[in-house]
Amino acid sequence: MSQFTSEQIAEIELLRSTRSSTIRPVSEGLEEVLYQPIPVLDHGFVRVIDYMGNDDAVVQAARVSYGRGTKRVSEDRGLINYLLRHWHTTPFEMAEIKLHVKLPIFVARQWIRHRMASVNEYSARYSVLDREFYIPAPEHLAAQSASNRQGRGEVLEGDEAAAVLDMLRQDAGRAYDDYAFMLNEGGEDESRKGLARELARMNLSLNFYTQWYWKADLHNFMSFLRLRADPHAQYEIRAYADVMIDLLKRWVPITHEAFMEHRFGAAQLSATAIQAVRRMIAGETLDQVSSGLTKREWGELCAVLGLPETATK
Amino acid sequence: MSQFTSEQIAEIELLRSTRSSTIRPVSEGLEEVLYQPIPVLDHGFVRVIDYMGNDDAVVQAARVSYGRGTKRVSEDRGLINYLLRHWHTTPFEMAEIKLHVKLPIFVARQWIRHRMASVNEYSARYSVLDREFYIPAPEHLAAQSASNRQGRGEVLEGDEAAAVLDMLRQDAGRAYDDYAFMLNEGGEDESRKGLARELARMNLSLNFYTQWYWKADLHNFMSFLRLRADPHAQYEIRAYADVMIDLLKRWVPITHEAFMEHRFGAAQLSATAIQAVRRMIAGETLDQVSSGLTKREWGELCAVLGLPETATK
Amino acid sequence: MSQFTSEQIAEIELLRSTRSSTIRPVSEGLEEVLYQPIPVLDHGFVRVIDYMGNDDAVVQAARVSYGRGTKRVSEDRGLINYLLRHWHTTPFEMAEIKLHVKLPIFVARQWIRHRMASVNEYSARYSVLDREFYIPAPEHLAAQSASNRQGRGEVLEGDEAAAVLDMLRQDAGRAYDDYAFMLNEGGEDESRKGLARELARMNLSLNFYTQWYWKADLHNFMSFLRLRADPHAQYEIRAYADVMIDLLKRWVPITHEAFMEHRFGAAQLSATAIQAVRRMIAGETLDQVSSGLTKREWGELCAVLGLPETATK
Amino acid sequence: MSQFTSEQIAEIELLRSTRSSTIRPVSEGLEEVLYQPIPVLDHGFVRVIDYMGNDDAVVQAARVSYGRGTKRVSEDRGLINYLLRHWHTTPFEMAEIKLHVKLPIFVARQWIRHRMASVNEYSARYSVLDREFYIPAPEHLAAQSASNRQGRGEVLEGDEAAAVLDMLRQDAGRAYDDYAFMLNEGGEDESRKGLARELARMNLSLNFYTQWYWKADLHNFMSFLRLRADPHAQYEIRAYADVMIDLLKRWVPITHEAFMEHRFGAAQLSATAIQAVRRMIAGETLDQVSSGLTKREWGELCAVLGLPETATK
Repeated sequence: MSQFTSEQIAEIELLRSTRSSTIRPVSEGLEEVLYQPIPVLDHGFVRVIDYMGNDDAVVQAARVSYGRGTKRVSEDRGLINYLLRHWHTTPFEMAEIKLHVKLPIFVARQWIRHRMASVNEYSARYSVLDREFYIPAPEHLAAQSASNRQGRGEVLEGDEAAAVLDMLRQDAGRAYDDYAFMLNEGGEDESRKGLARELARMNLSLNFYTQWYWKADLHNFMSFLRLRADPHAQYEIRAYADVMIDLLKRWVPITHEAFMEHRFGAAQLSATAIQAVRRMIAGETLDQVSSGLTKREWGELCAVLGLPETATK
Repeated sequence: MSQFTSEQIAEIELLRSTRSSTIRPVSEGLEEVLYQPIPVLDHGFVRVIDYMGNDDAVVQAARVSYGRGTKRVSEDRGLINYLLRHWHTTPFEMAEIKLHVKLPIFVARQWIRHRMASVNEYSARYSVLDREFYIPAPEHLAAQSASNRQGRGEVLEGDEAAAVLDMLRQDAGRAYDDYAFMLNEGGEDESRKGLARELARMNLSLNFYTQWYWKADLHNFMSFLRLRADPHAQYEIRAYADVMIDLLKRWVPITHEAFMEHRFGAAQLSATAIQAVRRMIAGETLDQVSSGLTKREWGELCAVLGLPETATK
Repeated sequence: MSQFTSEQIAEIELLRSTRSSTIRPVSEGLEEVLYQPIPVLDHGFVRVIDYMGNDDAVVQAARVSYGRGTKRVSEDRGLINYLLRHWHTTPFEMAEIKLHVKLPIFVARQWIRHRMASVNEYSARYSVLDREFYIPAPEHLAAQSASNRQGRGEVLEGDEAAAVLDMLRQDAGRAYDDYAFMLNEGGEDESRKGLARELARMNLSLNFYTQWYWKADLHNFMSFLRLRADPHAQYEIRAYADVMIDLLKRWVPITHEAFMEHRFGAAQLSATAIQAVRRMIAGETLDQVSSGLTKREWGELCAVLGLPETATK
Repeated sequence: MSQFTSEQIAEIELLRSTRSSTIRPVSEGLEEVLYQPIPVLDHGFVRVIDYMGNDDAVVQAARVSYGRGTKRVSEDRGLINYLLRHWHTTPFEMAEIKLHVKLPIFVARQWIRHRMASVNEYSARYSVLDREFYIPAPEHLAAQSASNRQGRGEVLEGDEAAAVLDMLRQDAGRAYDDYAFMLNEGGEDESRKGLARELARMNLSLNFYTQWYWKADLHNFMSFLRLRADPHAQYEIRAYADVMIDLLKRWVPITHEAFMEHRFGAAQLSATAIQAVRRMIAGETLDQVSSGLTKREWGELCAVLGLPETATK
C-alpha cells in the first residue's frame, strides 16, 4: 500500500475498525476485505466500499418470500443454477456491490460502456490529478497481432521493448510536467494566471490514472465479468475483472459457482453448430465445409469441443 | 398484522432477532423498522427488506473519498442540498433500498412504469393468488371530476355509494370464486382437470392484490416519490408513496430534508412565468392576459404564488 | 378488420396514402405493412407505426462510416452474424421500431417487464375502455401441466371446457356492465354522480384489452423475441411474438436470418455440458449420472442434441 | 469541409442524392441537413444520420391514436407544452435521432455519462487514429476561475497564452509522432514488430479527436441539451450542444419552442425560495438573511429574478 498516503491508510483503518450491529443479511467473505485496496496493474486498485445482500437475497427475491426464503442449501443451489441457466435476471438484480476503483483512463473508457451501473468519477475539472500513469510490465508489452485486428501478438523484446517503454515513460512524464506548469497551481510563477483545470487536463495522456466509485447489481456485475474477464478482452481491463471474480466468490459463493458453470465456462452453439454436433455424436466425421459453418465459426466450434480444426474423429 | 399467518409473523420475527456485526455504514432509523410490514390501504403493506448506504454514502461518493467522506454535518448538509438543487443525480444512485410491497394490481400497473428499478413479482402463472381485493374506504369513493378528466370529484354518498361498494365487492368475490372453481386446485372435483393457472388468473379483476420485491436507488426512489406523492397522483398509489416518504426520512434524514425543499415543495417556473414574477415584484399588477401565460399556466402560477387567479395585488 | 370503426379505417387509409420523399434509408418490407393492423388473438393487433434504419444501419454504425457503410452483401451478412454471435449489442441499438399494440391486460403485464423500451398506454383514468375481453379459442383452453408448475397440459374438453368458457364470458360481461353502470358516463341516471374512471376500472378483469404505443431498438426487440417467442412463454404473448418475428424478417432480413441462427435456434451449453458433449463425440456412451449434470440439465441437453434421455448412442 | 477526404465528400453526396418514397412521417427541416457535417471546434463536427418521427409523433403517442393523432396546430402546441411542463416523458421517447459526431476525447468522456443513449465509437484497438487534436482558439484559452473551482476565469493573454498554446501543440504533436513510431504500421522499420494498437493509443492525450455514432430519443436528447447547453457546462461540450439545439428546432419546431420555455429558460424555485418570492410580491424587501436562503441559494434566486444580491426593491 505504498501508493497510499498515511492519511488515507488511517482513514481506511478507521472505517475497518468501526463495527455496527445490523439485522440485515451479511456476507462474511466481503466483510473481511471491505475498504481494503486490492492492487491491480502498477498503480491501480479495487476496493469494496459497500454491498447489499448475498446468495440468500437472490433466493428470497425469486420466491417473493416473507422470511429468509432459503430452504435447504441444495435447493437454494439448484434454484440459483436454474435462474442463471434460464436467463432469469431480476433476482440477481436484488443484490448490489459498490467499488472504489483506480484505473488508467483508457481502461475507464472501456469500462464506462457498461451503462447499467452508477459512477462518480474524480473530477479533473475540479481537482488536480496525481502524477501517476500506467506503464505495461515487460511481459505485457505486446506486438500487434497479425491475425486479429484487435488483439495482441508476441511480446516485444530487446531494443524495441526498451525504446517503447522509454517513450511511454518520457511522454507521460513530460505531459504531466507541462500540465503542472500550465496550471501554475501554487501560483509559483506570479506572472502567470494559470490555465483552467478543465482545459489543462487535456494535455494528459490516456494512460494516466483516474478513479471512481462504481456500483452495480449482481446481474450487471456478472455481465461485466462475462465480457471483461474473457480472454478476448484487453489485458488491462481483464486484470480488474480477475480481481472482481475473486470478490464475486467471496460475496456470493453459490452464485459464483453457477456463474463459472453457466456463463464464464459456457458456450453458445448456433442452430447450424447444433446440427454439426448431433452428426458428430452420431459418428459422422465433419470438416468445415461439410459442417455448413463459416471458417471462423468452425474454428470457434472446434475450440469449444477441443477438436483440431482440420477434421473430426 | 391480522392479515399475516402465524408462520409469516414467526418468519419476520426470526429475521428481526438475528443480529450480525458489520463494518458497513448503518442507518439506525431503518434498522428499527426492517422487515416489519407497514399497512397501506385495506390489505396492502410496505416492508423494508434491505438497504445499502445512508446520507454519508452520498457525500462519500460525491467526494470519491478514501474514508467516510464526511466533514462537518453543516458541510455535508450543504453538499447534499447543492447536489439535489443542481440535478447531480449520480451520488444519490450510490444508496439502495429494497422493499416488499403488497398492492392492488391497478396500482402495480402504475408503479411498474418506473423502469429504473428491479422487480420480482409473485407469479400467478406459478402460484395461486389469495382471496384479497381492494375496496375503497367510503371517504375515498369519489365521483369523476367534472373539470379534470383524470381526477376525482366529490365523495359518493348514500344509495350510490352503497350500490357501488356492493357491486365492487360482489364482482370481486364472484371473480375469485370462479377462479378457484376453474383451477380445481385440490382436485375436489375429480371429473375436471382444472384450468391452467396462467389462464385462470385472467378472471381476476384489477383490484386484486399482488406482491413484489422492489429495489431502487435513492435517486430513483426520490423520482418515484416526486411523481407519486404528488396531489395529482391517484390516491391509492399516493397512499404507498406517503409511507415511503416516512421511510426516506428514517433512512437518509438530511437527503429527506433536501428532497422536501428542492423537489417535493419546489416549483418550476417557465421562462414566461419568470418574467411575470419579475414584473410582479417590480410592483406591476398582472392578470392572465397581461402575463402572457395560458389560462392553465396562469392558474398553476397563481397556485404556486398563493395568489387569487383574478388579478394580482 | 371488422373490429375497427369506419373512422379508424379511414384514418389508417389516409396515413397509407400519404407519400413523402426522404433521403433516409428505407425498409421496403416494412413500408408495405406500415399502419396496417395485423390481427392477434380474438380482438388484438399489432401495427407498425414507424421505424428507423434497416440492415445497413447496423453495418454503418459498426463501421462508424461516413457513407452507407455497406460493402458487398456477403461481407455485410458476415459482419452482422459476427456481431450477433459475439454479443456486440450496440450496432443493433441503432435501428428502431414503433408499434401500436392491442393486447389483454395480463399479456401487457408480462410485456412491460421489458424495461428497455418506451410505452404510452391508453389511460383508463382518462378514458373509458371498450367492451372487449379475451376468451381463449377452444384449442388453447388448457389444463394445468402436471409436470411444470408454470405450464399448460392437455386441452380441456367437453363439459369442463364449456363451463370454463361460459364462466369467463359471463364474468367479464358482468364486470363490464357494472363498470359502465358505476361510471354512469352519459349521465343516464341523473340521480347518480358516477364513479371516477380511475376507480371504476378496477372492476375489470385481466382479460380486458388495453392498447399502447411501444417502441424498442432492434437489440431489445430481439431480446423480447428470444424470450417471448420461446416455447416456454405463455401462448398468448407468444402469439404476439410470432407476428413480430415476421415483422423482423420484413424489416431487417439479414439480421432476422442471423437471429434465427444465433439466438432463436441456438442453445447454451454449460461448462459441464461441454465436457459431456466432448466425451460423446469421442465415442463414450453417457447417461445422466455419468454426465455430471443434474436430471433437469441432462434432460435439457438431450433435447438440444436430439437424444433420448435414457442413454446416448 | 476541408477536413474531409474527397472520398468522404463523395460518399456524403451520394447519400444525399438518393431519394426514396416513404409513407412514414418526415421532418422537412432535418431532411435539408441530413448527412451534412456541421463544423464544431477546430476539427469536430455533428452530422444527422437518421431520425424517426417529428412533433406529430409526440402527439400521436400521447393520444395512442389510430391515425396521425394531430388536431388543430394550436391544440397540438398546447398538448406538447402541457406534457413537457408536467414531466410526461414517454411521448417524447417516441421520436429518435442518430448523429455522427467527431469530438475531442475529453468531451467524449463527459458526453458518455448520459447513459440513456446508444453509442458506437471508432475503435483505436482496431484502427489507427488520425493526427487531429483540439487546440483552443485564443478567446477560449481561459484561466482558472478564482471563485468557482470548476469554472473558467479571464482569458489568458500575451506570453502566457503563447506558451500554453505552444506547449499543447508540441506535446500533442510529439504524442502522435511517438504513437505512430511505436505502431510502426507500414512496417517501415523492418527490425521492429510494432506495438499493439490497443497499447499504443495510451500515448495519445485527451485532446485527440475520436468519433462515434450516437442515438437518443427526443426526451433524452433534451435532457442532454438542458445540462450541456447550460452556461455552467464546459465551453467545449457546449459548442456541440448549441449546434444540437439548432437541430432540435429543425426537427421538432413545436417541441423546441416548449423546450426553450419549460426547460432551457425555466428555473426551479425551492420551497423556501417560493416563500421569499411570495413575500417580495406582497411588497416586502428581503435580503439574504431574511430570505431564509443560504448565500449561494440567494445569489441564484436573485439571478433568476434579475435582482441585485444586496437587497430587493
